[in-house]
Amino acid sequence: MFPNALTAAVGIESPVVQAPMAGGATTPELVAAVSNAGGLGSYAAATLSPAAMAEGMARVRGLTDRPFGVNLFVLDTPNPTRTELAAAQARLAPYRAALGLEPEAAVPERFCESNRAQIEALIELAPPVASFTFGVLDAATVARLHDAGSFVVGTATTVAEALAWEACGADAVCMQGAEAGGHRGTFLGDFEQSSIGLMALLPQAVAALDVPVIAAGGIMDGRGIAASLLLGAQAAQLGTAFLCCPESGIHAAWKAAILEAGDDSTRLTRVFSGRHARGIVNAFMDELRDDEAAVPAYPVQNALTGELRRAATAQGRTDFMSLWAGQGAGLARELPAAELVGVLEEELRVALAGAG
Amino acid sequence: MFPNALTAAVGIESPVVQAPMAGGATTPELVAAVSNAGGLGSYAAATLSPAAMAEGMARVRGLTDRPFGVNLFVLDTPNPTRTELAAAQARLAPYRAALGLEPEAAVPERFCESNRAQIEALIELAPPVASFTFGVLDAATVARLHDAGSFVVGTATTVAEALAWEACGADAVCMQGAEAGGHRGTFLGDFEQSSIGLMALLPQAVAALDVPVIAAGGIMDGRGIAASLLLGAQAAQLGTAFLCCPESGIHAAWKAAILEAGDDSTRLTRVFSGRHARGIVNAFMDELRDDEAAVPAYPVQNALTGELRRAATAQGRTDFMSLWAGQGAGLARELPAAELVGVLEEELRVALAGAG
Repeated sequence: MFPNALTAAVGIESPVVQAPMAGGATTPELVAAVSNAGGLGSYAAATLSPAAMAEGMARVRGLTDRPFGVNLFVLDTPNPTRTELAAAQARLAPYRAALGLEPEAAVPERFCESNRAQIEALIELAPPVASFTFGVLDAATVARLHDAGSFVVGTATTVAEALAWEACGADAVCMQGAEAGGHRGTFLGDFEQSSIGLMALLPQAVAALDVPVIAAGGIMDGRGIAASLLLGAQAAQLGTAFLCCPESGIHAAWKAAILEAGDDSTRLTRVFSGRHARGIVNAFMDELRDDEAAVPAYPVQNALTGELRRAATAQGRTDFMSLWAGQGAGLARELPAAELVGVLEEELRVALAGAG
Repeated sequence: MFPNALTAAVGIESPVVQAPMAGGATTPELVAAVSNAGGLGSYAAATLSPAAMAEGMARVRGLTDRPFGVNLFVLDTPNPTRTELAAAQARLAPYRAALGLEPEAAVPERFCESNRAQIEALIELAPPVASFTFGVLDAATVARLHDAGSFVVGTATTVAEALAWEACGADAVCMQGAEAGGHRGTFLGDFEQSSIGLMALLPQAVAALDVPVIAAGGIMDGRGIAASLLLGAQAAQLGTAFLCCPESGIHAAWKAAILEAGDDSTRLTRVFSGRHARGIVNAFMDELRDDEAAVPAYPVQNALTGELRRAATAQGRTDFMSLWAGQGAGLARELPAAELVGVLEEELRVALAGAG
């Protein structure tokens, strides 16, 4: 089942992709360790300025000469109303106070980096793999990424979204199952109808697409990778599985929460960022549950909670941190990234050999 | 990967279970055809009186001498308030009028069959396999089912629920992934946290349990069965895959809706029955979406909408029918049940052989 068209085109030995995870999880050290071990490391650049993107990618390139990926979001320009902003600030005030911050969150001059500038920088920086989440690019931008030498991967949560990526020229589509931790990539259609488990999503995507499919969501070990390949994927993307590696940049308290989690520890929430994301349930998620629909859309809520989340992290307060994790968190392991890739490969070989 | 402990204990050749589906889908003819083809047919008895249970099971026994299953719900006694009932009736009035019924739904003398009487009848009728959904039995009842000669299967949506079934003596647990069509079996903990995709749920359940696991949810073909076995299940339970068989008792318009469905055609709703269930989105689900949390709990809402759903079915009005289907609906096939079991077996063998 591998090597296959995807592993050959990307130039990797293992059908194992380490998911890009914004917020500092995917350090250059993690990305390079995975790529050096034969998988595809992915660097999350979505919240970085063009200068920080260049610096981070230079560090990755200094640590590996193997293929790696870089991920950006595809965003519309936010345009919140004053009323919406005031309500959002009021909602956050008690949590800011509990963390010793001024009660009123400052409204930033801009809510996120210029997405167009980030995309231009990425074309210039020409990573071996360029992946995108939250939207779809136009064909001209994909063509420019191709001219720069990048293999383009779009993220989709439904067949319709996958077809949109195929139509604009993507080389592969990462199908994100409802099991996945962190932000949902949904950009078309009804959100609930787009939360589809991999067991149902993968075969329908593979049947509809000509380009290779990468499976993402709840995959934690070689059995899950093997199951994804049997359902027609050519590689599996694992995020939560890599979060507890020593190279992962997340707070020790977040790692501890993952290692203590069970199958039913997570749910989707909008309250941290304004976009549905899956994390380990904590006080912030529970207390704001009735406001799920009311918080401003990403990136506005994300910007407004930024200082609060940084303060919670600095204080190790897991009750107010965004503890992103997938539904497979109960299977997380604490291994160096290169060793984890080796274990995944071995488990995959055993699972496939045991099947035949 | 098969024969295995589960297929040997139940006495079936194929690791294929046809899911019990209430509402007339699982006719004695469907159940017997699946069992005669080497799988395990399952008869849904949850809405039947003890007399109707006996009659249906006699028909199954007249059509097959192979093992088959019978499913019941495990229910608490409903106790709605008058205010709740009046609000529920008012909510349904326009839909009843649109179908030519009296605007006010009659409140039935009882909202469902006596669950205790059903369970006593099941012990008396002693099916080869007795399966249960929506709750957990006490150990004494499981012991009486064992004494009667039944193999007992509990349905669980989380590891915690699965452990509750194991603790009361169940012989196997059916793990229902979030992909599954029809009613969610969740009976412990938070509903959203209990909607777990099979890719994450199966390996965690298999790791936690001593008894065999049956995988359910979004599985439509032999690849999905193979993937489930790789993740540690010993059999796969398919519901939607069997709904379009000629032996299935659902309305032709419901079958047509499944055959036209895509991956993103379904979502969970409480508005038909008062318990979360996955179906193809229609006008009734969309128009009552804001009332999701307000409708009375199962079986009250189910009883109040009974006449409405029967009228909608009689008139072929899919906009008001409960079109239960799983997230794999886009892969549904229209084949006689015995032929479908044969195709699934062949696909499973090909998938497993291709893996090794």
